[in-house]
Amino acid sequence: MSTIFTKIINGDIPSYKIAENEDFIAFLDAMPLVKGHTLVVPKKEVDLIFDLESEEYKNLWGFAQEVAKKVKNAIPCVRVGVAVVGLEVPHAHIHLIPLNNVEEMNFKNERLKLTNEEYLEIQNSIINS
Amino acid sequence: MSTIFTKIINGDIPSYKIAENEDFIAFLDAMPLVKGHTLVVPKKEVDLIFDLESEEYKNLWGFAQEVAKKVKNAIPCVRVGVAVVGLEVPHAHIHLIPLNNVEEMNFKNERLKLTNEEYLEIQNSIINS
Repeated sequence: MSTIFTKIINGDIPSYKIAENEDFIAFLDAMPLVKGHTLVVPKKEVDLIFDLESEEYKNLWGFAQEVAKKVKNAIPCVRVGVAVVGLEVPHAHIHLIPLNNVEEMNFKNERLKLTNEEYLEIQNSIINS
Repeated sequence: MSTIFTKIINGDIPSYKIAENEDFIAFLDAMPLVKGHTLVVPKKEVDLIFDLESEEYKNLWGFAQEVAKKVKNAIPCVRVGVAVVGLEVPHAHIHLIPLNNVEEMNFKNERLKLTNEEYLEIQNSIINS
């Protein structure tokens, strides 16, 4: 069965897409810790990020670097933090999290509830940054 | 003034080293969240990881991949998590954290106090894995 990320990649589930190429996609996290929380995902359905073949793995991080710079330009924050946890969805993904303090990178924190308009505004600000 | 990581790289401060090449180094975190918590650091003293030049940045992640596989082989865990926060030491570094649950990746958690013997045992088990 496809993971939820593959369904997003295939367009079967909508997302607020930030960037995409042949191998990778970035979209806003549907349960964000903070505004601008973005997921970077390889289109290949692999559970553990470290199991990606070396070149694809490094290119995934290169793609994440480009996305992170756009997030940093668009979202007021001290820096963009990175996390790979993956205990919930068995499809490797990188969290890019605009941080102002270390407490914000706690996956047990309550998630933001954003309106469609807020998501669209964040999406546009990152894409156009 | 040199960062604490540059002092470790230069051997002015001791560390439990896991791996090293011309550009990168990995050693056990001195304030580990869990046993096997490892830091991967570029020798170049740069604050923000995303400011590294693209090739060096990707090679840093490639080096981290090799280290993470060794950590996973040595330390019982569900998977090795990744975090880049960097609000405390202005020298880019990747946390590799053997995880059994998401609560373990919370930088506000109390840190483990390990003995020299425990650190040496962990270091040897990772190096020899």
